[in-house]
Amino acid sequence: MPSNPEFIINFQPVGKRVTVSATDTILNAAQGAGIDIASICGGVGICDSCRIRLVEGELSELTLEEQAVFSDKEIKSGFRLACQVYPCSNLVVEIPPESLTAPQRLQIEGQSQIIEIDPAVIPIELNIPQATINDLRADTIRVRENISNEGIELPINFSQSVLENISPQLRMNDWHVKLAMRRSAVVAILPPHAPLLGLAVDVGTTKLAAYLCNLHSGQILAKAGAMNPQTSFGEDVISRISYSNNVSDGRKILQNRLIETLNQVIQGVCAQVSQNNGDVRPEYIVEAVVVGNTAMHHLFAGLPVYQLGMAPYVPAVSESLVIDADRIGLNIAPGAKIFLPPNIAGYVGADHVAMLLATNLWPSSKTKIALDIGTNTEISLCHDDQLIACSCASGPAFEGAHIKAGMRAAPGAIERVQIIDGELRIQTIDIAAPIGICGSGILDAIACLRHVGALDHRGTFHSTHPSVRDVNNKKEFVLVDHFNSGNGQDIVVTRQDVNEIQLAKGAIRTGIDALLETAGIEADEIEEFIIAGAFGTYINIPSAMAIGMFPSLPIERFQQVGNAAGAGARQMLLSLKHRAKAEEIAKQVSYVELSTYPNFSNLFSKSLFI
Amino acid sequence: MPSNPEFIINFQPVGKRVTVSATDTILNAAQGAGIDIASICGGVGICDSCRIRLVEGELSELTLEEQAVFSDKEIKSGFRLACQVYPCSNLVVEIPPESLTAPQRLQIEGQSQIIEIDPAVIPIELNIPQATINDLRADTIRVRENISNEGIELPINFSQSVLENISPQLRMNDWHVKLAMRRSAVVAILPPHAPLLGLAVDVGTTKLAAYLCNLHSGQILAKAGAMNPQTSFGEDVISRISYSNNVSDGRKILQNRLIETLNQVIQGVCAQVSQNNGDVRPEYIVEAVVVGNTAMHHLFAGLPVYQLGMAPYVPAVSESLVIDADRIGLNIAPGAKIFLPPNIAGYVGADHVAMLLATNLWPSSKTKIALDIGTNTEISLCHDDQLIACSCASGPAFEGAHIKAGMRAAPGAIERVQIIDGELRIQTIDIAAPIGICGSGILDAIACLRHVGALDHRGTFHSTHPSVRDVNNKKEFVLVDHFNSGNGQDIVVTRQDVNEIQLAKGAIRTGIDALLETAGIEADEIEEFIIAGAFGTYINIPSAMAIGMFPSLPIERFQQVGNAAGAGARQMLLSLKHRAKAEEIAKQVSYVELSTYPNFSNLFSKSLFI
Repeated sequence: MPSNPEFIINFQPVGKRVTVSATDTILNAAQGAGIDIASICGGVGICDSCRIRLVEGELSELTLEEQAVFSDKEIKSGFRLACQVYPCSNLVVEIPPESLTAPQRLQIEGQSQIIEIDPAVIPIELNIPQATINDLRADTIRVRENISNEGIELPINFSQSVLENISPQLRMNDWHVKLAMRRSAVVAILPPHAPLLGLAVDVGTTKLAAYLCNLHSGQILAKAGAMNPQTSFGEDVISRISYSNNVSDGRKILQNRLIETLNQVIQGVCAQVSQNNGDVRPEYIVEAVVVGNTAMHHLFAGLPVYQLGMAPYVPAVSESLVIDADRIGLNIAPGAKIFLPPNIAGYVGADHVAMLLATNLWPSSKTKIALDIGTNTEISLCHDDQLIACSCASGPAFEGAHIKAGMRAAPGAIERVQIIDGELRIQTIDIAAPIGICGSGILDAIACLRHVGALDHRGTFHSTHPSVRDVNNKKEFVLVDHFNSGNGQDIVVTRQDVNEIQLAKGAIRTGIDALLETAGIEADEIEEFIIAGAFGTYINIPSAMAIGMFPSLPIERFQQVGNAAGAGARQMLLSLKHRAKAEEIAKQVSYVELSTYPNFSNLFSKSLFI
Repeated sequence: MPSNPEFIINFQPVGKRVTVSATDTILNAAQGAGIDIASICGGVGICDSCRIRLVEGELSELTLEEQAVFSDKEIKSGFRLACQVYPCSNLVVEIPPESLTAPQRLQIEGQSQIIEIDPAVIPIELNIPQATINDLRADTIRVRENISNEGIELPINFSQSVLENISPQLRMNDWHVKLAMRRSAVVAILPPHAPLLGLAVDVGTTKLAAYLCNLHSGQILAKAGAMNPQTSFGEDVISRISYSNNVSDGRKILQNRLIETLNQVIQGVCAQVSQNNGDVRPEYIVEAVVVGNTAMHHLFAGLPVYQLGMAPYVPAVSESLVIDADRIGLNIAPGAKIFLPPNIAGYVGADHVAMLLATNLWPSSKTKIALDIGTNTEISLCHDDQLIACSCASGPAFEGAHIKAGMRAAPGAIERVQIIDGELRIQTIDIAAPIGICGSGILDAIACLRHVGALDHRGTFHSTHPSVRDVNNKKEFVLVDHFNSGNGQDIVVTRQDVNEIQLAKGAIRTGIDALLETAGIEADEIEEFIIAGAFGTYINIPSAMAIGMFPSLPIERFQQVGNAAGAGARQMLLSLKHRAKAEEIAKQVSYVELSTYPNFSNLFSKSLFI
């Protein structure tokens, strides 16, 4: 019995060599070597979290999954999915920093794949007798009278957009069509070969993530991200609300810009899938689910935001909402509906509900916390089968704003600071020369500075530390000097930076503590501590505990689950039961308003210590 | 006991003098004198069919009804409503030709006033507790939870347009609002004092008629007419369908032009009513009903018309339809719905259904015919509780097209030709010098020419008649010579004109005969013969019988009912029961397609004789 050939893989920049069989995927190989490559989808090739880059050697052929995930440019650059490829020779493989996991990563995006498919829109194929001089029934009647035996709730009705094109649609397809039925409503008339597609979108304040799914198989056909174009009208939610209030048609402008970008994304994902899977068009997308924080939700749906920007900050709409795609100009099937799950409060939105759904926070007999860190951090606590939530103004410090050397998570950003052999060691995104610090880096840095005695618990620098220097009577810590930085400048951490992080992490900790206090429990009763969102995925949990952002818990209780809101959106796209569950969750949540929380000042002042 | 003062009224151009009491309206006075002034609304001042003009003397003060009906210009010109005014002195009163009735005028527009009011939209007044820091419910929830005891079908839902403005609406009105509820849907949030209004529109190929009604009282607050602006894109339905097919966005252009004109009409009627009745705005119009022939219906609603223009000429939609006002840009309450009753066939539209509803044609144990004469003439026959309908291509001859001296019904048009003392006598619109012949005039003229022996039964001129002359070997009849015409030209009836009318009236008679034949009955079994529409109101029934357009029946069986389609639209605006009845009527109708009717050629060739 001939044995499989074996090859040596040299993983960089980790610098580990392993010998593997030709039947092992690169993912298996890396995991076997103790290298934690991210694998959000569970290794089925539909996310790109395990992306690696081939530096030297030969890998197995490009799979369809990889073609769907990577752009042409990325493929030319040697990007591959570790879960999809097998070694065909000895290799040098580079693992980009974004593919390295945090301690324990819950495979949420994978989970949404194994839910029962129960979509809002289902197909019916019809062969309709054509109109003749002896059969003068109207086109609608002709459809109605052929659908009667299909097990659909009767009578059917037609969305107005469908009526606007019904006659050419029937004739162009020679009276052989596929109807997209949403309960008893015809939302699209398509050629018989058209697949029914769905779109799940997470509208973040900064970034958009879109997932194109097959509504029948549940498969994610493509995903794509984009910056939220509203960013140029204001970095945060409050400044966008101000824009809406102060500029004539401001709300409409913000909505239109968002929709335009989403339309480009839709065009992009359809083109991408069409390259491999044939005819995939935006008009085959017959249902969408969109999640976002309350302000993004309202701006997307065209709802008033004025009252979101002034006390007492109430949403216009908190129930789940179904809107017409063509009403807001989203270029999918014109008769398609867009489902938006409920909002909980002015600052706890539909994206948090989606996250709660995807993380299975409730119902549960366990005590669990789930949070999504951003400019605003939403936190939910499940205890004793009760669900309470709050929102904390954690500010933009974690996105690099208001930090002297701060930057977004981009190549050259210091994303990790560690103490190795008593020395501070930095790691940058793409292993580029350091040019600044992003959120996870500054968090690490402060934890390390505290650890090495450069900072005290109040956030004051100790002048005695060799890297602490005095500039204009203000102390700062030189993390990277100008000889070693990518831009010839010192990369420093200032007292002001420390203060910003103290305020940000203090706000989050106050939220956590207020929920614990409301539930009448202690922090160590938290059995699961779930951190969602992009930033949450990259932070170093021990650092976050060290500076008191999170309570000190055994590391294994933490889970970093990535874009759980997007995963929740996909679940709701594929399953009506999950929509119902999201509605239940939103009803279940008791909202705790921190600004009127009695013990707020006390908790907040305690939370500032690092 | 002092008797009321008495005054002498001299009615012109009729030339009758009567002595009346000061407590008699001018309408009563005229009727007492045997002058048939039209009184479509039954004398309650809400139509303007009894318009008269004061030439000399003094009348009672202008009523609100009159102010609503007349423009300032008309008021200055001395126009009044005969039913509303009383003499205050001896008078000279002019009765314009349009106020003179045909033999028997059914008071349909009046009838729609006495139906049970059962509108689609009803008001709920709410006082809502405002949002505070201790009551953070979303605006929608705040409305929902206050509505629960109002006897409305729960849960309520909100039209998307309402959601788009709900927050400012609630706050602008200090949380005291009137909701317009359409079943369980909130279609408008209005100030508490706002009346709920409705709009009924009859979209004719040539003319539009709109009625603004109070949905609570049923009162017609104002009515207005306008030309259908689509006329400049094609005089008839077929040419507009061609325009839609041949010009990019043609269908959308035709729709937009129509909507623009309707928006002006809406603005106009609201402004008109506001002058007297306070705050009346387009956004208080919370429901509309629109009727029209199938092509007008489709163009208004944005439905495909391509298939209406080619065999077998089927509608896209024949069921009743509810569309969103803001979707098509109709400037009424943005959340308002527009109800369009069913179409029967490609050439028997929702306006015919409305007419059947208003004339109570079915159900009935009587044998009745109802028709609406136009470029296309729709005819329905009720016999033995069955309803059958057909459509005849009667062409535009009755609108003056293809007739040498033809013109629309405008001042100077010969609208009546009679034989008095053996002499032909003409009557023109506004008693102006004659400049042409309109539909009713040409009909009369041919009947008279036949009567005086100038024409034979085939439509050929007898050269022996002194007024028949030969021009380029073609015979023609001089109706008015150039000395007596208003434009210095002879007004003649040519052989070609006679031929056009033969074809037009033949088409109508063929339709009538085909329906009678289908029902297996003879013409004299028709107990009621109802003629609707503007042209039908002005034709002289004996002339129509004389030339064989209508079967010969006792004159009292005929009724000329005016704009019955508009009256039906109003009934459906004010009563859901009438909508249901319209749907029943449409279902009940069996459509007879004349182009494939076996005996068509035979009937048609017989029908051409005059």
